[in-house]
Amino acid sequence: MADNAITLDALQERLWAANFNKWLGLKILKIGDGTIEIVLPWREEIMSNPKLKATHGGVLATLVDATGDFAIATKTGQPVPTVDMRVDYHRTATPGDLRAVGRVIRLGSTLTVAETEIFDNENKLVASGRGVYFTGAIKP
Amino acid sequence: MADNAITLDALQERLWAANFNKWLGLKILKIGDGTIEIVLPWREEIMSNPKLKATHGGVLATLVDATGDFAIATKTGQPVPTVDMRVDYHRTATPGDLRAVGRVIRLGSTLTVAETEIFDNENKLVASGRGVYFTGAIKP
Amino acid sequence: MADNAITLDALQERLWAANFNKWLGLKILKIGDGTIEIVLPWREEIMSNPKLKATHGGVLATLVDATGDFAIATKTGQPVPTVDMRVDYHRTATPGDLRAVGRVIRLGSTLTVAETEIFDNENKLVASGRGVYFTGAIKP
Amino acid sequence: MADNAITLDALQERLWAANFNKWLGLKILKIGDGTIEIVLPWREEIMSNPKLKATHGGVLATLVDATGDFAIATKTGQPVPTVDMRVDYHRTATPGDLRAVGRVIRLGSTLTVAETEIFDNENKLVASGRGVYFTGAIKP
Repeated sequence: MADNAITLDALQERLWAANFNKWLGLKILKIGDGTIEIVLPWREEIMSNPKLKATHGGVLATLVDATGDFAIATKTGQPVPTVDMRVDYHRTATPGDLRAVGRVIRLGSTLTVAETEIFDNENKLVASGRGVYFTGAIKP
Repeated sequence: MADNAITLDALQERLWAANFNKWLGLKILKIGDGTIEIVLPWREEIMSNPKLKATHGGVLATLVDATGDFAIATKTGQPVPTVDMRVDYHRTATPGDLRAVGRVIRLGSTLTVAETEIFDNENKLVASGRGVYFTGAIKP
Repeated sequence: MADNAITLDALQERLWAANFNKWLGLKILKIGDGTIEIVLPWREEIMSNPKLKATHGGVLATLVDATGDFAIATKTGQPVPTVDMRVDYHRTATPGDLRAVGRVIRLGSTLTVAETEIFDNENKLVASGRGVYFTGAIKP
Repeated sequence: MADNAITLDALQERLWAANFNKWLGLKILKIGDGTIEIVLPWREEIMSNPKLKATHGGVLATLVDATGDFAIATKTGQPVPTVDMRVDYHRTATPGDLRAVGRVIRLGSTLTVAETEIFDNENKLVASGRGVYFTGAIKP
């Protein structure tokens, strides 16, 4: 790892410094050099379609955003602002834990791209997406 | 309006049928033919950056998704599944109500595109984005 | 206009400094403060589907990219690098001139977002899209 | 491979049935089951920035679009219409052949997502992107 290496525990603390990530209960499973896995536990309040009990697309977007951001944080030591984000919805996310796998695509001095895939508890791809993040103001 | 016109009250009820929209307290302000305005009231739990008290990018993404979807619902009478979505973040959304203005860009028999702009309480553009929605399975 | 105002002729010259824009024959119709209209004349080589004689999606993407970039140039006096871009395809673009209308959504000191709509010669919306551009290295 | 398997030569012929792909000289290097590699040879006309001799972002977008489409065609036996597309630009693409590697992310009966990475002749990632394609009208 680089000089600015950060432990899983420290990243988890940073993740929950954001109230919304904490409310969702996002939990970091493991980290690598530019990679991360985060679990989103299911809860009643995150449903969209009440018949299908589908998880809301905005919650999946949150997971794409946070997972990409903290994949970058494994390299930079800190989360950074999101410039833009896009999500593809592949399947209905029915109740159960969701697992997000993120990786840095290209780390730049100003802008960084990270990608996230979200799997359901049968390991099926539910959604995937990308964020562009601003890495031009990282403080040592 | 078209034959499948729907009232603001009926749309509000549909909006809150999704637990997550209800938890966020999304409230429809007004509707037109393919247009809608929705307010997101601020609350502690939606913060991302604790110092800036910024609203989480995932919450803004949720607002883009829901506003686009219900702009379409003013035409179709019902919300439809999101195919994909993208959001540009323009400014930090500090505490205060956010107002989302959505409109249908192109209503198709299979796929429909809707766009949303989000303004803060000083009427500054905070974020904007688009969703592609599947309108190919609408039930009369 | 701002101090860095630039004339339509000067912008047209900058546009054609890029070989590919010149090969396509992109022509600026009019400019405003953060707005622009560009015409793409049809030619045999830009077809995708040979039966429908549809214009290639990549050519439409080029038009979205260039139009957004030069909408920004009406404000900055120069085109800037594209960070990312997305295009929605609404209708088949059959032979005939295409008109692209671009506008700056949010001009930032580091990043700028511009949006483009493309119309066919019956004024129907064929495609639309957005680009994020890097305005952090503009030289006076 | 599936019943609708198609040979590299047949795909190459389909690729060049589109005038613009032929003009660009796109050449399929190899195909797999939902994967493809395509080369874009450099030529003067595809430059954007004349000083850097950079390849135009619209040409890279074309390559993302076509590569994703023909990655799908290895599974469906035919190219399909693009619904939307997005491209991230990671590095300036200086003169030299570009190699695009595409793969199907999720093949659906109505909509399919494919992703493409573009490498320069030093194997550096120049751009990457995704397309959503309409697979709901495939003819046997």
